[in-house]
Amino acid sequence: MEPIDNEEGFRPPVYIVGAGPGDPELLTIAASKAIKHAELVLYDRLVSDEILALIPESAEAIYVGKLEGEQDIGQTQIFRHLVKAVNLGKRVIRLKGGDPLVFGRGVEEWLFVKDLGCEIKYIPGLSSSIAVPGSIGIPLTARGVSSSFAVLTGQLRKPSESADDRVNWADYSKVETLVILMGVKRRVEIARELIEAGRSLEELVAFIENGTCAKQRIVRTSLGAVAAGNIKVESPAVFVVGEVCKFHDQLFSLVDRPEVREKRLEGNG
Amino acid sequence: MEPIDNEEGFRPPVYIVGAGPGDPELLTIAASKAIKHAELVLYDRLVSDEILALIPESAEAIYVGKLEGEQDIGQTQIFRHLVKAVNLGKRVIRLKGGDPLVFGRGVEEWLFVKDLGCEIKYIPGLSSSIAVPGSIGIPLTARGVSSSFAVLTGQLRKPSESADDRVNWADYSKVETLVILMGVKRRVEIARELIEAGRSLEELVAFIENGTCAKQRIVRTSLGAVAAGNIKVESPAVFVVGEVCKFHDQLFSLVDRPEVREKRLEGNG
Repeated sequence: MEPIDNEEGFRPPVYIVGAGPGDPELLTIAASKAIKHAELVLYDRLVSDEILALIPESAEAIYVGKLEGEQDIGQTQIFRHLVKAVNLGKRVIRLKGGDPLVFGRGVEEWLFVKDLGCEIKYIPGLSSSIAVPGSIGIPLTARGVSSSFAVLTGQLRKPSESADDRVNWADYSKVETLVILMGVKRRVEIARELIEAGRSLEELVAFIENGTCAKQRIVRTSLGAVAAGNIKVESPAVFVVGEVCKFHDQLFSLVDRPEVREKRLEGNG
Repeated sequence: MEPIDNEEGFRPPVYIVGAGPGDPELLTIAASKAIKHAELVLYDRLVSDEILALIPESAEAIYVGKLEGEQDIGQTQIFRHLVKAVNLGKRVIRLKGGDPLVFGRGVEEWLFVKDLGCEIKYIPGLSSSIAVPGSIGIPLTARGVSSSFAVLTGQLRKPSESADDRVNWADYSKVETLVILMGVKRRVEIARELIEAGRSLEELVAFIENGTCAKQRIVRTSLGAVAAGNIKVESPAVFVVGEVCKFHDQLFSLVDRPEVREKRLEGNG
């Protein structure tokens, strides 16, 4: 796709911006400014309604999201939107949930924009992998409990993906805390593979749906219950496995965030 | 340590705030507001000068940092400051570099404050583990290169720590991208243990000192060179191991951030 020069030959920088987990107060100052001055926003499914409400009325906002496990609109179409907007000399923001470089093909978009000859401004966002568990009192590390964490995708890259390309859960069996993003759809399979790889049936699990947003919902359970197919969760949710989930009871209270509705499922929800 | 009630019996919430990697523009809006209204700020070594400059003149700022590998001021003393300030009814912020719950004993402080009967406001921060590599064009994940990352501490918990308590690097030998925080001091030992655990001598490594700040410095090298003791790095730095380091050449250019001074060490720096 060859870019066409606009009349002035001027190309403004393209901003690749992390929207964070959802709460607009958790945007960075830099992201907030970039959104305020945008003329075109290309946004993903994981950008919250609360943050979309901050896009100025004068700006065009185009949804370019992909549903978990499928591709609503191909990456090629995102690239087309980028080329068009850049050639019109518009101030473009590529707004992605969480951090733009944690999954989500951020690298490919960065390379594409760079090849167009545009300057890139990368504005990192709070990754849901850390901020969402933290917000409900689940630290990913805690002295004597967990001195490391790993973040993985639960998503198959394509339905026909070969076994070689898939996550080998055994490689992560000794990492104390696991955070799985985009893992709701395949949660039963993931839980089973983790148990096969040596993790305990009793291992604590938390799913946090729509983390940090008004419609946040917390599901606490065990790996065994997830593997048994008993746990109902809706996407998007952050899937945490590990002993650190126990801190939720001690650290979190509804007093802290009265707007948060909490439901606990005792293994057979 | 029994808290003493203040005259009014009123205890304002205590804010546990992530300061992010260093650039004040990368503070969250919530963190920025909390700092602006603080009356007492207890801050760590990893909070940048640029962010400390935002603390209002009317507020008291107390340094409670610990140097890598040692404890300047004990955790007990931090707790003493917290009790005193809370009992005076002051608006207290516990300001920590990166995210407060990624290492750094955030959980212990949260529990302590909760036991004082105070409400906690946890404001997550951008973890340097993700935002610092990203800012120089090193994504922690990239399609076909890395579908996961792990974040670990390079620090021994105490000098006399037994072998059992230490990180077993072999457990992480198959995780594509490793990010080691507080690993500068022990970098030679860590690199050697990773090589023993099966990682290649040629594996790419990046250290980013003072990430996102004006005095940022980037050191790119190989695991073998680090193991050989040839690489000079100063703390604080984020230590990244993995093929994703290659993207730095493609994605980053000094045009993007002209204030950033870059030095490349070709294996024997």
